[in-house]
Amino acid sequence: MIKTTTRLFGVIGDPIAHSLSPLMQNWFFQHFGIDAAYLAFHVHRERLSGCVEGMRALNITGLNVTVPHKEAVMAFVDQLSPDVAVIGAANTLQNDGSKISAAVTDPYGFIESLGAARDRFPGAGVVLFGAGGAGKSVAFALARLGIQRLTIVESIDEKAKSLAALARQKFHIPMVETLQVESPDLNEAIQQSTIVINATPQGMHPNLKGLVITDFSAFSKRHLVYDLVYNPVTTRFLAEAKTKGATTLGGLDMLIFQGLQSLRIWMEEDYKLEERPLQQVRKLLMTELRIHE
Amino acid sequence: MIKTTTRLFGVIGDPIAHSLSPLMQNWFFQHFGIDAAYLAFHVHRERLSGCVEGMRALNITGLNVTVPHKEAVMAFVDQLSPDVAVIGAANTLQNDGSKISAAVTDPYGFIESLGAARDRFPGAGVVLFGAGGAGKSVAFALARLGIQRLTIVESIDEKAKSLAALARQKFHIPMVETLQVESPDLNEAIQQSTIVINATPQGMHPNLKGLVITDFSAFSKRHLVYDLVYNPVTTRFLAEAKTKGATTLGGLDMLIFQGLQSLRIWMEEDYKLEERPLQQVRKLLMTELRIHE
Repeated sequence: MIKTTTRLFGVIGDPIAHSLSPLMQNWFFQHFGIDAAYLAFHVHRERLSGCVEGMRALNITGLNVTVPHKEAVMAFVDQLSPDVAVIGAANTLQNDGSKISAAVTDPYGFIESLGAARDRFPGAGVVLFGAGGAGKSVAFALARLGIQRLTIVESIDEKAKSLAALARQKFHIPMVETLQVESPDLNEAIQQSTIVINATPQGMHPNLKGLVITDFSAFSKRHLVYDLVYNPVTTRFLAEAKTKGATTLGGLDMLIFQGLQSLRIWMEEDYKLEERPLQQVRKLLMTELRIHE
Repeated sequence: MIKTTTRLFGVIGDPIAHSLSPLMQNWFFQHFGIDAAYLAFHVHRERLSGCVEGMRALNITGLNVTVPHKEAVMAFVDQLSPDVAVIGAANTLQNDGSKISAAVTDPYGFIESLGAARDRFPGAGVVLFGAGGAGKSVAFALARLGIQRLTIVESIDEKAKSLAALARQKFHIPMVETLQVESPDLNEAIQQSTIVINATPQGMHPNLKGLVITDFSAFSKRHLVYDLVYNPVTTRFLAEAKTKGATTLGGLDMLIFQGLQSLRIWMEEDYKLEERPLQQVRKLLMTELRIHE
């Protein structure tokens, strides 16, 4: 129940109508016993500055930032975390009462979502589809996880080159290459890797048939295949990889853990999500996703 | 439950920790089936402008404004209601998506709180203790109710004179006079009036012994005695007046109806509060007040 002491948190974006964050964060508040409420705010680009000023004025402790404001918001805060400075995007604003800091929790959400599969990353070769905002966060996480080789597959050449440069020079991944989606070398790259990740919106509801790759002949049971798309929970990409024996992971846990990481930053508490509550959040979010299908 | 579609409302003030508005407005939301959440925001004077900008940026539909910002907030909005312009204070901000308007609902809260006692006001003589913000709103309401004579009792001469001028020139009350609290004419003024109102904080928790007047010999069963203080529900002032046979009214209903009036402005709906739900809100607020005693 909302009281006079209840603190406000929220997410800003445009559009924002389908954000799962309010449902998830309010569940977190209840689970961890936090007296707070989390709302979604539809914020236009030209109002970003007013939004950060409003955060200061209303003494809002935390905001998440989503598409399309993750880059633009950086200009209006007082301080960037080193990760934000390197990645060039922020999804978490924290107001400590005197200054507003920007952090990015997507890479941590990705890492924490791996669970036991985390052991597969050190020294691995990884094929990454997509060099947009999500691809950038994943590449940063992959560097943290100690991968050896990154193959970036992206149809827009400029984006591929830009992320490749970042991955080499700022993230310090030892070997980085780029490939076009249609490249005849793609199957070989997949064969020589053990991890394949989709960080594009292909296959996302309602375009369930979308696929970043149509030839799955190079996929095998040696592969860990990760799709950042969480709606549907099992994308066509994951389903196809599964028929080849690959281990698959969907994007729902990354969503959950990036949110949890934001909460940790805001509350300065190292909240843990055990297996049972994690199952509960997953179920809650999947139910909500089904409502909108 | 908070969802992605849930709209934010709130109250800004300094301090704000004891505001009853979150409890009351969230109850209203539930009662009237409104998908919204109402929070309290501790806002410093120098952040008022950022607060209004934040309201715009976050697309917040409505805010209440309380002490000490009721006057200062007027400088930052796009539009003042005629009542705000005359009274010189606002307690309700409404954002219609393109502009932010300021309204004042205290006078309407006062009028609606009278119930059947409203009939006593046309042509009446009224003694009003206190010429501060609350006194101003009450004087405006008294003019609307068609009283004939207003006696303003206020220890700070400047405030008394200022409200008297306002009551004469802007509110157009036919006869207006001012008196010092110690004036020997006070008892006669009360005798010649049928309504006595306390719009000072005297007697408010925790200073339960505070009284605007100590000699109650002029009070009789002809009198309607109204105390804007709602904590405690029955102030010492009301208790003393009651022993003289006067009809008494506390400030709780004014609080409720000014809040309801704000909600009507925000939602552009003419919500009604029947006797039973009104009893429920009263009970809810009284329970909350007892917790903080």
